[in-house]
Amino acid sequence: MLGVLGGMGPMATVDFLAKLVRATPAGRDQDHIPTLVCSAVDIPDRADAILGTGPDPLPAMRAALARLEAGGATRIAIPCNTAHHWHAALQAGTGLPILHIVDAVAETLARTGIETGGRVGLLATDGTLRAGLYRERLARREIACRAPGPEGQAAVAAAIRLVKAHRVAEARPLLEAQVRALSEAGCDRVVMACTEIPIALAGSDPSGLLVDATEALARACVAACRPDRGDAAAALPRAA
Amino acid sequence: MLGVLGGMGPMATVDFLAKLVRATPAGRDQDHIPTLVCSAVDIPDRADAILGTGPDPLPAMRAALARLEAGGATRIAIPCNTAHHWHAALQAGTGLPILHIVDAVAETLARTGIETGGRVGLLATDGTLRAGLYRERLARREIACRAPGPEGQAAVAAAIRLVKAHRVAEARPLLEAQVRALSEAGCDRVVMACTEIPIALAGSDPSGLLVDATEALARACVAACRPDRGDAAAALPRAA
Repeated sequence: MLGVLGGMGPMATVDFLAKLVRATPAGRDQDHIPTLVCSAVDIPDRADAILGTGPDPLPAMRAALARLEAGGATRIAIPCNTAHHWHAALQAGTGLPILHIVDAVAETLARTGIETGGRVGLLATDGTLRAGLYRERLARREIACRAPGPEGQAAVAAAIRLVKAHRVAEARPLLEAQVRALSEAGCDRVVMACTEIPIALAGSDPSGLLVDATEALARACVAACRPDRGDAAAALPRAA
Repeated sequence: MLGVLGGMGPMATVDFLAKLVRATPAGRDQDHIPTLVCSAVDIPDRADAILGTGPDPLPAMRAALARLEAGGATRIAIPCNTAHHWHAALQAGTGLPILHIVDAVAETLARTGIETGGRVGLLATDGTLRAGLYRERLARREIACRAPGPEGQAAVAAAIRLVKAHRVAEARPLLEAQVRALSEAGCDRVVMACTEIPIALAGSDPSGLLVDATEALARACVAACRPDRGDAAAALPRAA
């Protein structure tokens, strides 16, 4: 049973679950992946903690993980990019394998031809950028990362807060402007590296530039939980 | 912590969770309702069991409920109408209160002025109709129920199977035709009384005729888990 350590934020978890269901080759309920989801909305803000302006979220994340273990989960996914700053600490405390969202994105990039020498833009929280989550992990594959400048990044952070407050329509143009700027700065792809962002940019990718970390994680879950069907999932057309 | 006995089907559970998040007055993650969701996709088909053509789903539903209890749930919602045939049996086996989706619909009907003497149409599985889930519970409020005729009901059942197989666009016109027929037969409202149906009819209610059982259950959960905020949720505009 797949365990989802979620609630960071709650709508991002719903978006992940929708992508998980769509990525699963299925003709009836019983073909899907049994899943236990903890929407632990009380987990303190991850980006604030990395920036030193908020409490440590690790104890609350560990408590949610314990609920998933108690409920019978056998493998864990975390649909929050910033939370992966604590991936190693969480993994050290459990015998259940925890998928890593940046590895899932790297696999998606490789599948679309972005490998050694590639350059990707990042739309992410201040915390994800400060922690170097993508920069370090993609550097191992010789892929370079570029974030918006200070003003652009302030717009991205504001957009993420707007999505969390159900104000998606206001977030969208802020993010679209940063996608354009990163593309003009020479990025081959722009990674939506915060799970709130695909909610705001749904259906907004005329040039095929965007890579959705949430969808990448969902496909990695299908491949891990259904090794017999993973290739079929990878070959599916992009969900509408 | 709200426990969701889900997976019947998996996308219907996702639709319920999205409506739960939207119905919760919130400006940040921490304002939402902590939720534990078991997407128990291995539960045998509920409608088949009621019709005597499939295995009993009660043991698998009880196992999922036990997972939610082990994980710390304190109140249960079941986003599957047909599964409510086993509501009393499930409630008898747990101390946790289990909300009833038909009561949630009755509250929504009352809020929109449909009470004693009203007549509602039902779009539901064959199992829900055979079990009389809505007919009996709404009769207590002197609201009459009307289902499509045999051919119309066959189209509804086919549409439900199409949604479960990710073929939403094919399901939609089948359902729209039955909404029209029930309206022409004098129904004041048409209840989408299977949680697959609002997925197919999303955005398709120009005359305000439809009542969404999934959304009604989500609002009942907000009212139950946030008694201080329930009225605010009830007063929210309908989610887009």
